[in-house]
Amino acid sequence: MRTEQDPAFAEIAAHIHTNVGKQGFMNLVGAELSDLSRGECTIAVDRRPELLQQHGFFHGGVTAFLVDNATTIAAATSRGQPALTAEYKLNLLSPAVGEKLICRARVIKPGRQVSVVAADVFCVTDGVEKHTATALASIAMLNEEVATKTKSPAA
Amino acid sequence: MRTEQDPAFAEIAAHIHTNVGKQGFMNLVGAELSDLSRGECTIAVDRRPELLQQHGFFHGGVTAFLVDNATTIAAATSRGQPALTAEYKLNLLSPAVGEKLICRARVIKPGRQVSVVAADVFCVTDGVEKHTATALASIAMLNEEVATKTKSPAA
Amino acid sequence: MRTEQDPAFAEIAAHIHTNVGKQGFMNLVGAELSDLSRGECTIAVDRRPELLQQHGFFHGGVTAFLVDNATTIAAATSRGQPALTAEYKLNLLSPAVGEKLICRARVIKPGRQVSVVAADVFCVTDGVEKHTATALASIAMLNEEVATKTKSPAA
Amino acid sequence: MRTEQDPAFAEIAAHIHTNVGKQGFMNLVGAELSDLSRGECTIAVDRRPELLQQHGFFHGGVTAFLVDNATTIAAATSRGQPALTAEYKLNLLSPAVGEKLICRARVIKPGRQVSVVAADVFCVTDGVEKHTATALASIAMLNEEVATKTKSPAA
Repeated sequence: MRTEQDPAFAEIAAHIHTNVGKQGFMNLVGAELSDLSRGECTIAVDRRPELLQQHGFFHGGVTAFLVDNATTIAAATSRGQPALTAEYKLNLLSPAVGEKLICRARVIKPGRQVSVVAADVFCVTDGVEKHTATALASIAMLNEEVATKTKSPAA
Repeated sequence: MRTEQDPAFAEIAAHIHTNVGKQGFMNLVGAELSDLSRGECTIAVDRRPELLQQHGFFHGGVTAFLVDNATTIAAATSRGQPALTAEYKLNLLSPAVGEKLICRARVIKPGRQVSVVAADVFCVTDGVEKHTATALASIAMLNEEVATKTKSPAA
Repeated sequence: MRTEQDPAFAEIAAHIHTNVGKQGFMNLVGAELSDLSRGECTIAVDRRPELLQQHGFFHGGVTAFLVDNATTIAAATSRGQPALTAEYKLNLLSPAVGEKLICRARVIKPGRQVSVVAADVFCVTDGVEKHTATALASIAMLNEEVATKTKSPAA
Repeated sequence: MRTEQDPAFAEIAAHIHTNVGKQGFMNLVGAELSDLSRGECTIAVDRRPELLQQHGFFHGGVTAFLVDNATTIAAATSRGQPALTAEYKLNLLSPAVGEKLICRARVIKPGRQVSVVAADVFCVTDGVEKHTATALASIAMLNEEVATKTKSPAA
């Protein structure tokens, strides 16, 4: 358990889980925050017909949702500061086939005002991962006062 | 009715509506293809608790989904060619409040291989639109053979 | 003269011109800050063999340089605050032919921490402009103390 | 010498070196194609006052130029096909100090129509590298006929 050696992070993690639990869209999509550590976040979702496009692949919008959420949460973990997606770029590399989508985000450069976070999305078929998308995000790091007013999406 | 003067486009539009109707994720989100013309596509979605994040704003993932779908469809309309999102960049400009989200995409530069499409997302409160996000996308234009094999998301 | 009605901007503009004049790379490229107003900046450069690639078009790197500089400066004009390019995305739309390149940047959304700026680049042949590139940038807005320490590129 | 085991690549590499040698802007900047292999390209440039901005850092435009050229060339090496920058996103992570800038690009996903290429830029001080920028690019892969007409920037 990673949080045992890092009580400050345990508190941040609990706070993030609470917030993510309140996201209606996270619940609608059925995604799960499967791993969380300092500067890293993994979100995964199982295949369901409701998540697909007309040819039976995961819809690009599902991939984008995972990227949006995972990058912001990864940034929020790094210093326990509220965070807000400023922007990201997403390249779709191959059709998102298979039974599961996994998005792994990691902070490349933590910042006082802006943190830069990379994310890679994999689709899983019979346990084998394939790289289906890659993204690069800038996350605005808010101070507490600003966060209270603007109600940031993560932490 | 825009398709009356453009029978070729009427066929393209019908084909797009059929394909979009088969998108499980479009139905899950509850979005609607509200306008379609050569080089342009508008998709809108009404506020529901399932589309929000923890502070009651539309989730950034909903905005991204609208952008993904609208840009690809806009590219598909311009020449009736199958199209596939290659990549996009999305800047979130302000919290997506209000009762409705509208994404308007327009082709900036049609291309043989890649079309460039811009999109703007507005949130609507009491009928007043606010600019909440802006995006720039590259859409891969497929020829029919390739499309059959890779099963593109739009058209 | 736009600065006559806006003495505060006149000071900002003078400061920007001084800073840009100290940019070795601006001088090497031979670009000129041709227009400056609140939230807007235009930079242009005439064709010279040193700015081209192997087929006689302006090199993409010249286009990128104009975008980088014009977007940061446009952000700096909007509130007189030091500004620093955080990131941008650049789509090249067509070969940059002709005798001149012009980049026009305009602030889409001024922000306390991040301003969003769009830029379009045109190439000019016999006085006729062609759209050759489009870009979307996030500019970090620094407070004075930070700026002194990090020495931002514009203003 | 990597080309000894790969005669087809040796020919591609020679062709690329010839083309890059004809780039006026590459010569003006004084950058050097320092490493080239299948799917990878490294370009470096030494510090000179002409490459700096007003505070003595490498100008962001120099970083962008390295990214533009290295990503396109990396894509061109992977299959020997002409290549053309379609778009890229560039995040500047820290001030580009030091005596040298190095950009390393690598193909993430080769494609028939579009190849996706990542690049990282490092600045070097007393032999120690610091990560100063990261980028993600989409490169249009041209067939020979198209290339002849549009005169692509690399290969």
